Amino acid sequence: MPQYKLYYFNLRGWAEPARQLFKLAHVEFEDVRIENGTPEWGALKPKTPFGQLPFLSVDGFEIPQSAAILRYLAKKFGYAGKTSEEEAWVDAIVDQFKDFVTPLRQLIMAQRSGNAEEIERIQKEVFAPARDTFFKILNGILEKSKSGFLVGDGVTWADLVIADILTTMEMLGVFDKHGEEQKLAALREKVNEIPEIKEHNSSRPDSVV
Amino acid sequence: MPQYKLYYFNLRGWAEPARQLFKLAHVEFEDVRIENGTPEWGALKPKTPFGQLPFLSVDGFEIPQSAAILRYLAKKFGYAGKTSEEEAWVDAIVDQFKDFVTPLRQLIMAQRSGNAEEIERIQKEVFAPARDTFFKILNGILEKSKSGFLVGDGVTWADLVIADILTTMEMLGVFDKHGEEQKLAALREKVNEIPEIKEHNSSRPDSVV
Repeated sequence: MPQYKLYYFNLRGWAEPARQLFKLAHVEFEDVRIENGTPEWGALKPKTPFGQLPFLSVDGFEIPQSAAILRYLAKKFGYAGKTSEEEAWVDAIVDQFKDFVTPLRQLIMAQRSGNAEEIERIQKEVFAPARDTFFKILNGILEKSKSGFLVGDGVTWADLVIADILTTMEMLGVFDKHGEEQKLAALREKVNEIPEIKEHNSSRPDSVV
Repeated sequence: MPQYKLYYFNLRGWAEPARQLFKLAHVEFEDVRIENGTPEWGALKPKTPFGQLPFLSVDGFEIPQSAAILRYLAKKFGYAGKTSEEEAWVDAIVDQFKDFVTPLRQLIMAQRSGNAEEIERIQKEVFAPARDTFFKILNGILEKSKSGFLVGDGVTWADLVIADILTTMEMLGVFDKHGEEQKLAALREKVNEIPEIKEHNSSRPDSVV
């Protein structure tokens, strides 16, 4: 096994599904957590491949961008889909998630601003329509799923990405697991009940994102 | 060979690199072009996998999301990178491109609004910093490249995506091929001089995006 080092901030954020993939596959890795705004990050930033985190080091070979890291690990460990067509659907779901991140980020920025009027405007005009579109797509996929997972008959990195974003949304107050989104809540529970994930999640540092 | 049908609007947009991949690989496909705002699109939209274009039909099996389509075809046709590590770098470059699309789209929306003050504000505050970051990353990659392509020793779908976005940016007046971006201009020329690409580009319908 190569020596893996995953560099990210001390957050779940863009790196959490990668940490979970290592746990699922029982592969050792160094979980390097860097505090944002510190001299340590200032010194590291210009040495990273794209000037940003996360990046993954595989025996010193560096891979930037979270989805690229996740796909690389998922393929190595067997969580990328079992056929080319399953891989394409996993990729498509994650791309759809990436499209959803822009409005989600706008909501997070509005919430951080503390401006109640702006929060309401972004929530109503930007975030809610994007969430409805995204959830409709995911629900449509889950309605047809026989396994309860998003693609094929087992867990893939798309499930990890979606389960994690639902947790972020719950923490931000925009996902109600007891509400209408039963199928999505069930998917998250299914992911989080996998023993390796359950153990990992129960021992990780708390963070909203 | 399966029967491929690529469904997209009558634009280059998110589908052009997929059309180019078919041409590169000398694989037949049906280039289904739908006019936005027509009853035809209204009727098709609810039947698409994610309610949007492009999607690819492979003997009736449908794949949504442009990057998922491109990666699927590139893997089939041999333009996805030659190793897992090359594939990861191709993916990372395309993810970085996707991050750049949000500010680019903001600029396009501002230009369409025709509001000169707003165009200048978006250009200066949003678009220019994002372009500088993106171009710095691409230039850094090209400086280390021995082939002149972004990854490895031959053309990959990342080169097609970047060459096409440079053409869009040039048409929008925000890429000067005679200016400072010589390395990027050279990459685009290298891609567009590939005989199959050259022939395809010379016969395709004109469009700004």
